[in-house]
Amino acid sequence: MAAAAPPPPPTSAPVTLPESDPSGNTLFTRIRLATVDDVPHIHKLIHEMAVFEHLIHLFEATPESLANTLFPENPLPPFSSFTVFLLELSYMPFPPTPQNEHFTPILKSIHLDVPIEDPGREMFRSKAIDVSVLGSDVIVGGFVLFFPNYSTFLAKPGFYIEDIFVRECYRRKGLGKILLSAVVSQAAKMGYGRVEWVVLDWNVNAIKFYEQMGAQILPEWRICRLTGDALQAYAHINI
Amino acid sequence: MAAAAPPPPPTSAPVTLPESDPSGNTLFTRIRLATVDDVPHIHKLIHEMAVFEHLIHLFEATPESLANTLFPENPLPPFSSFTVFLLELSYMPFPPTPQNEHFTPILKSIHLDVPIEDPGREMFRSKAIDVSVLGSDVIVGGFVLFFPNYSTFLAKPGFYIEDIFVRECYRRKGLGKILLSAVVSQAAKMGYGRVEWVVLDWNVNAIKFYEQMGAQILPEWRICRLTGDALQAYAHINI
Repeated sequence: MAAAAPPPPPTSAPVTLPESDPSGNTLFTRIRLATVDDVPHIHKLIHEMAVFEHLIHLFEATPESLANTLFPENPLPPFSSFTVFLLELSYMPFPPTPQNEHFTPILKSIHLDVPIEDPGREMFRSKAIDVSVLGSDVIVGGFVLFFPNYSTFLAKPGFYIEDIFVRECYRRKGLGKILLSAVVSQAAKMGYGRVEWVVLDWNVNAIKFYEQMGAQILPEWRICRLTGDALQAYAHINI
Repeated sequence: MAAAAPPPPPTSAPVTLPESDPSGNTLFTRIRLATVDDVPHIHKLIHEMAVFEHLIHLFEATPESLANTLFPENPLPPFSSFTVFLLELSYMPFPPTPQNEHFTPILKSIHLDVPIEDPGREMFRSKAIDVSVLGSDVIVGGFVLFFPNYSTFLAKPGFYIEDIFVRECYRRKGLGKILLSAVVSQAAKMGYGRVEWVVLDWNVNAIKFYEQMGAQILPEWRICRLTGDALQAYAHINI
């Protein structure tokens, strides 16, 4: 179904593009660290997620508030705070990426029976690579937002995945798995003990998928949330 | 039941101790940021927690692994990563603490009918204040470990409380509430949107307590956890 892209050559070597697929039925994927320039796309992705989850009434994020909180003026090193991996898609192979001190983008490809009709193509065109260089548009297909958590019993950090989202027209192709495995690989690389996320108990397909990948679904734990007026009231309680 | 301690005088003023209670039935409490010097006590507290929860088989933390992960060589600013508040107890009032750039310790007191018999007094004696200065031992009574999380819908950070623990002999005095409200106050001060934690679904007393404080218990979400061999396997999966 899918094959890993060849490893990038040393950064000093001349850039040679991996072979493209003249049939146009190979979708090349790249996962890279998002930057503040990606905020407009991240905002649209979160908005699509809120619509999909019928939770648009809870959606308060603006491009400005996302930029301020995800990419603050004095940013912490990648992976030590809120981190976004962006999934980019192209029908031409991505150029090899120079090794980066924090993260080398992950290149893969998947074979399609037919190219995917994307009604949001205009809105999700990535500006990271110029079309004239690649010979194809680069389209933002999804994202994953995660950050460190901590287990006192293990005395080890882990990663908590807050959101993982693939745009509707690109689903059921294994792209969610590519995003998820990028986070898990990063956790393993850093010697972290766990990757955790949450799922709705009625989402049996998702639960089945997670169990097949070896995750445990913890049946007894419930999330407690203090927010809004109740948070303000408790913050000023006189004990 | 309890009253807040008077605010500390300006740091340049001579230190004057708040009035003590000659009956010995007032327990003075202080919440402060833990430091690497507190690791031996933090380790013992987590061990007691594991025993209490019948989860000692999952307890792998050592003082060394806790020190390395909670207090690394190049620490991030307090509250931007894993943060520990320590609860200290004394039968003499704590001296006012100079204002700190990150966090001013929270001083409170609670009235007891009789002083508490503490079988772990020796093991949990704090070295933060010398007994000759205070005229009383300072005992570590509990801790809370928390770190930032993030809501994409709010585009705001929050705090996630991983552990909150009060030693057995000091329970049912409102000390857990003092620890919890310290985290909530800090969240409010930083303009954060939420404080979250988890509870076991059969722990009806805890659920009742959390609901009374205004927290929502989210009934539908389940935690998914990838750890150990399954994490390693998925990190190296060939998609």
